[in-house]
Amino acid sequence: MPRKPIITLITDFDSGDHFVGTMKGVIFNINPDVEIVDITHKVASYDIFDAAFSLAQCYRFFPSDTIHMVIVDPGVGTSRRPLLARSMNYKFVAPDNGVLSLIYEKEENVEVRHITSDHYFLNPVSATFQGRDIFAPVVGWLSKLVEVDKFGETITDYTKFSSPKPKQIAENLIKGIVLKVDKFGNIITNLRPEDLPQLFAENPPAFQIIINQQEITRLNLAYSMGKPSELFAIVGSSGFIEICTNRGSAARILSVNRGAEVGVKLGGQNSGAGS
Amino acid sequence: MPRKPIITLITDFDSGDHFVGTMKGVIFNINPDVEIVDITHKVASYDIFDAAFSLAQCYRFFPSDTIHMVIVDPGVGTSRRPLLARSMNYKFVAPDNGVLSLIYEKEENVEVRHITSDHYFLNPVSATFQGRDIFAPVVGWLSKLVEVDKFGETITDYTKFSSPKPKQIAENLIKGIVLKVDKFGNIITNLRPEDLPQLFAENPPAFQIIINQQEITRLNLAYSMGKPSELFAIVGSSGFIEICTNRGSAARILSVNRGAEVGVKLGGQNSGAGS
Amino acid sequence: MPRKPIITLITDFDSGDHFVGTMKGVIFNINPDVEIVDITHKVASYDIFDAAFSLAQCYRFFPSDTIHMVIVDPGVGTSRRPLLARSMNYKFVAPDNGVLSLIYEKEENVEVRHITSDHYFLNPVSATFQGRDIFAPVVGWLSKLVEVDKFGETITDYTKFSSPKPKQIAENLIKGIVLKVDKFGNIITNLRPEDLPQLFAENPPAFQIIINQQEITRLNLAYSMGKPSELFAIVGSSGFIEICTNRGSAARILSVNRGAEVGVKLGGQNSGAGS
Repeated sequence: MPRKPIITLITDFDSGDHFVGTMKGVIFNINPDVEIVDITHKVASYDIFDAAFSLAQCYRFFPSDTIHMVIVDPGVGTSRRPLLARSMNYKFVAPDNGVLSLIYEKEENVEVRHITSDHYFLNPVSATFQGRDIFAPVVGWLSKLVEVDKFGETITDYTKFSSPKPKQIAENLIKGIVLKVDKFGNIITNLRPEDLPQLFAENPPAFQIIINQQEITRLNLAYSMGKPSELFAIVGSSGFIEICTNRGSAARILSVNRGAEVGVKLGGQNSGAGS
Repeated sequence: MPRKPIITLITDFDSGDHFVGTMKGVIFNINPDVEIVDITHKVASYDIFDAAFSLAQCYRFFPSDTIHMVIVDPGVGTSRRPLLARSMNYKFVAPDNGVLSLIYEKEENVEVRHITSDHYFLNPVSATFQGRDIFAPVVGWLSKLVEVDKFGETITDYTKFSSPKPKQIAENLIKGIVLKVDKFGNIITNLRPEDLPQLFAENPPAFQIIINQQEITRLNLAYSMGKPSELFAIVGSSGFIEICTNRGSAARILSVNRGAEVGVKLGGQNSGAGS
Repeated sequence: MPRKPIITLITDFDSGDHFVGTMKGVIFNINPDVEIVDITHKVASYDIFDAAFSLAQCYRFFPSDTIHMVIVDPGVGTSRRPLLARSMNYKFVAPDNGVLSLIYEKEENVEVRHITSDHYFLNPVSATFQGRDIFAPVVGWLSKLVEVDKFGETITDYTKFSSPKPKQIAENLIKGIVLKVDKFGNIITNLRPEDLPQLFAENPPAFQIIINQQEITRLNLAYSMGKPSELFAIVGSSGFIEICTNRGSAARILSVNRGAEVGVKLGGQNSGAGS
């Protein structure tokens, strides 16, 4: 017996309206034998990067053949295209506004199609809720194993942004930005340990992380290793360096939000143990 | 093999307490082979109309035989009756406080029963959480295909309100109200295109929508067709005319909330292209 | 055919990040044939008692063999142990920080194991998201009926707190505390009817419940029996005495939150009908 197909949902619909429930109704009406998993519906309204980030963090933990649907769709009702993307292990359904950009980066050989086969859509299609009228029925039919080429032709001119990369400003200075503040107030940067290999060497140099004019000079292994209200860096579960504090919100202490600049100076006045 | 039955939930319980999870436990304890779908648990506390509106928006998108449970229950613990309503395709379980009113309007031949068969209830029944003690076990047993007449006798004196209808005030003036502000700040009125057929005619007249002393004079086809901070009308996915703005909250701009009055003047000083 | 196993989740992860969805992906990747039920993800950050309370309220309403996972984990990444506890009917997976304390109180003969078999974990294990890397895979394998003794040895020195008990201060005075304020603003105390049997006797004495310097002198049978803005006591669905008001927030009226002191004086100046 084949496994029940899984559909995941990421939207900016929140949970106070009927929107998410209605999309699930549409899906179950097409395929009652499907498992629908909410990732988050609290993407900030119209925030394409935030949705892309959540998707990039979670999609690979799902079984292969999972269908990931992402609806953050400020262009709903215009000519922006509905897309169906397929990588080796996963399918993705989303509007063509860049929300799959991190997937295009992370997955090899992603095949992207413009969904045009409107006999799979609800009829009529509204101009304001295509999550219900286009995307939900498409994932419903996909989960019933309709072949991807039935939905439309492949395209190569889909919208794509590059994820923001750290910049080497000087030999001992690298600059990045804040990608996200999580629920606990941890500040997730776009810096990876491989961007700062010296910090993880056997005898790491002193360093200063500068964010909103404050300096952080400690790297800890666990959140709870920090003293009360002390700020420190940690390698987070996302693979990125985070700024955090023990049982508190680093973002609140630092008044920092997404997009803020983060500088890392290696060596310098605090140095001493440098390799 | 018969399809797995679906139960949907609409409540004002929110998600910070154990309430919703506990009801699901009760349902699964009776019928482990059921699909439970959350529509929303963020109905404003005790807000019967808001729950009725969400239900009316979503119920028809679910497969037939779906059981819709709605628990907004300010009268819990008093003599207000628990109800089981059945239309051609759906079953509804809710307290008798009017929360099914829009279903009585939209569905034909709704049969309404007073649930009295307390051997289906948990024992004892608390005075404060009958979602757990009465409604959840009833939908659990319903999903196991217990016949509706086993739960109690039909009644005709159930509580029912009429949905607020637009009023023709003068030949060129119609007045409606705001039914809901959605997550994005779109203002959903009770005006339907069929209440204002002139606006959708080939050569529509100029019009002014007056809401909180501001005038809106544009009707767009998609949210993203508006200029920044411009307010305009659109026909929403609910079938009602909405007031909105591109990537922003019309409700915040207009300081408008549910129940606010909306006037539509046809022709008038802005006119010119009138038919 | 054996019933689909049920896994419930209680966390302080909220729903704006990918955390909960990612854990579900990990579980489904191990066992696609499992039912995952969210109890709440809105436990206050790091609030072990709040999670313990929600768990204690709901766990017994689930079918036997349900696996309850609780992740409120301020000590993540340190040497705090991951635990697997088993009672007659349920399994519990949680960090060893006391979050299972109310289970140890309520269930008989709880067997507690230190989870050490790291071949069940994801590899590598992060220092910041062990819900994903340790706890989710463990419940996934547990739901596939891997025997509990495969996960680690039993221990007896697990962390445990006692639930706060009311104190008899004088013959006619008992003091308790507020355990929780629910979504509606009802104030749940740690006082049970059995702590105040006189109140439930045939001719109950007058009484005053004193909370934040205000006196409550009525006990009602249903929320809606109170007059507007009147404060009164009720026996809640949790089995505890609650302070509430009809269609409003008693917590807001009284400016009371968790941990506040509650005194109950029996007889006294308002008395008259005393037994």
